[in-house]
Amino acid sequence: MGKKTTVGIAILGHGTVGSEVLRLMGEYSEDLTHRIGGELEIKGVAVSDLDKHKDSPAAHLMTTDAMSLINREDVDIVVEVIGGIDYPRQLVLAALKAGKSVVTANKALVAAHAAELAEAADEANVDLYYEAAVAAAIPVIGPLRRSLAGDRVKSVMGIVNGTTNFILDAMDSTGASYDDMLAEATRLGYAEADPTADVEGYDAASKAAILATLAFHTRVTADDVYREGISKITAADINAAKNAGHTIKLLAICERVGDTVSARVHPTLIPRDHPLASVNKSFNAIFVEAEAAGRLMFYGNGAGGAPTASAVLGDLVGAARNKVHGGRAPGESTYANLKIADFGDVSTRYHVDMDVHDQLGVLARIAEQFSNAGISLRTVRQEEKGENARLIVVTHHAYERDLAGVVEKLKSMDEVKSVNSVIRLESE
Amino acid sequence: MGKKTTVGIAILGHGTVGSEVLRLMGEYSEDLTHRIGGELEIKGVAVSDLDKHKDSPAAHLMTTDAMSLINREDVDIVVEVIGGIDYPRQLVLAALKAGKSVVTANKALVAAHAAELAEAADEANVDLYYEAAVAAAIPVIGPLRRSLAGDRVKSVMGIVNGTTNFILDAMDSTGASYDDMLAEATRLGYAEADPTADVEGYDAASKAAILATLAFHTRVTADDVYREGISKITAADINAAKNAGHTIKLLAICERVGDTVSARVHPTLIPRDHPLASVNKSFNAIFVEAEAAGRLMFYGNGAGGAPTASAVLGDLVGAARNKVHGGRAPGESTYANLKIADFGDVSTRYHVDMDVHDQLGVLARIAEQFSNAGISLRTVRQEEKGENARLIVVTHHAYERDLAGVVEKLKSMDEVKSVNSVIRLESE
Repeated sequence: MGKKTTVGIAILGHGTVGSEVLRLMGEYSEDLTHRIGGELEIKGVAVSDLDKHKDSPAAHLMTTDAMSLINREDVDIVVEVIGGIDYPRQLVLAALKAGKSVVTANKALVAAHAAELAEAADEANVDLYYEAAVAAAIPVIGPLRRSLAGDRVKSVMGIVNGTTNFILDAMDSTGASYDDMLAEATRLGYAEADPTADVEGYDAASKAAILATLAFHTRVTADDVYREGISKITAADINAAKNAGHTIKLLAICERVGDTVSARVHPTLIPRDHPLASVNKSFNAIFVEAEAAGRLMFYGNGAGGAPTASAVLGDLVGAARNKVHGGRAPGESTYANLKIADFGDVSTRYHVDMDVHDQLGVLARIAEQFSNAGISLRTVRQEEKGENARLIVVTHHAYERDLAGVVEKLKSMDEVKSVNSVIRLESE
Repeated sequence: MGKKTTVGIAILGHGTVGSEVLRLMGEYSEDLTHRIGGELEIKGVAVSDLDKHKDSPAAHLMTTDAMSLINREDVDIVVEVIGGIDYPRQLVLAALKAGKSVVTANKALVAAHAAELAEAADEANVDLYYEAAVAAAIPVIGPLRRSLAGDRVKSVMGIVNGTTNFILDAMDSTGASYDDMLAEATRLGYAEADPTADVEGYDAASKAAILATLAFHTRVTADDVYREGISKITAADINAAKNAGHTIKLLAICERVGDTVSARVHPTLIPRDHPLASVNKSFNAIFVEAEAAGRLMFYGNGAGGAPTASAVLGDLVGAARNKVHGGRAPGESTYANLKIADFGDVSTRYHVDMDVHDQLGVLARIAEQFSNAGISLRTVRQEEKGENARLIVVTHHAYERDLAGVVEKLKSMDEVKSVNSVIRLESE
């Protein structure tokens, strides 16, 4: 590696991000040359359908043969902005094996196949960059890989999916239903035609896996992440949260649990004065707590063509600098080799909303279920609800296992008509 | 460079930061070895007075001869945490010239002598790291040098001095005077015995110079930064700000002004719902606005032994990785070579507080001064104040030059008893 004056680039994909990367590479080319100490030269852009892009100013660079483009001798760095898993995995592996450095924005790919990709990069002694895979332009991969490399991270907690944050924020401010606000998000382009990956937390789980891997220097894949989406959150949940001075956010939470590591994604109640509570619209924010550094927060645009392209270009400059000057970005670091925590061993607080028969002694019998499981209650609120009563219980810290057991028992009690929702609660 | 398995470290200084760096290097040594791919070995600690540290667990490593320590053949990286300018400058230059990489937390040194230091590092092909020089553990140097290397920064604005933020926050929440809250800050260890560097904005100006240099790829030194401290801020100013829904923060603001660059540090009114308004105690927060990334915020502990040591260790891991694996951190980037803006060309909004004689037509004559200078007014508030009236004017955007002219004229008007304060105002 090293000592080139021209760095050949192949771009795989020409969607929202790919076209923005191309545009900015043109607009910033003079700056990029200065910053790299060498020139970037786009050797080709791989697309699936040439016709679709025939009016693009980059049409003359396009090809449908991604594999041949990657293997061109004058290509030094491959930028993968296609999305999906299987096809980009083949391309990225081929690129790494051919000695090309890779910049990818593909969280699903990295979260599923980081080990295989890192190994290929190590073997070829090339770079694998993926800052854009988590929270787009917000620098968080870089800080975890480098700035915090001399510290011990205790936890990472954040809003890492813009679509769900938009929907929850809109439900919170309008009082509208999940379905209506999902429709609104789709109309405004915040949600995709098939919103499953976002609203069911798959996207956030991929990001949680990447963050946990970097934070704790251990392997965590998307499959290791406990995942609950937001599609069951009702206007009533939002309203109850509001009345209690809380708001609901879809959080990714990665933490050490004894000698194991836990990563989870689920709707979470947080107090309205929590810094994450004011992260609105489709913005992202990530808290990192480290032993020496204390608490750090990173905030910004977590999605969109330009912010994602900004992160891709930052990585591209890094990879290109290494091609010109020699050297390599920090490789993968998974030496800690920690086990994934049993989800039952994870501890947090819970907000349990149920309808109960309005009879003498009901509260005592319900409270007994909690105390039998060793779970103490922080607040209990009872209100009339037609012929029944609505009971909202907030617990102190308890184990998932114990709480799940109590909920099963509550559901089987004659006095309990329904357990409407169980939402986890985090506070500072 | 490259391919070592043991990296020799010299630490210059054993104060709050130096002793914490030593402690953490011991506590984290196993992790650091894994992350670097080689072992850190402390070859010596330079102090000014051996007696003072004779009970330290690192006493056997100490020497008063910093220069000999630096020049030891088995020292690869020098960590400078002494503070001051002239003496550490000699040491850091000697280290770089001897082919040692340098990690420093010294903002005053970097802001005053970056060009000379960068040149020495380039000539010797070694690293110069200084993440801890701005906002301690908050990663902002790294993100500007790397993550945003493919973007164009438009502005950087932030709270970069914990001492002044503590004092202003305490004045805001208690209504107490500047002197009382400075005394409180001193008592609690947030302010030094001689608080000048903090309260008069010199510390923040050094940081502004470093941030502007990195953000705009041009040379900005501490002398180029317009600077006003907080020692003239009164309880009345804070109270007036509060009544208008604002708070006062000491901000460092770096921005492009046409083809020039401006960096300034001064007390600034911001709306209470501005994200920087809720940065309390001695915390720091920095906003970066870039063309593609949009607005990013970085928040955390901006001072203290452990947070500063965290940043130093992050840099140390980076420098050590390069000693082991080869390669070099991005060198200095000042190709843009922009002029420093004439301060008169800087434009912002102003809050002007004056006592005026309570006569017919006074307001009209004062308003005329502003309009003659082409400055339009956003709000005007007049209230009784004994026999006189107090007049508070908030302008729309105006040039420093024009505003200064108006203030001179106001002071010479018979109708104006006194101009009590002129405070700049920023909003989103």
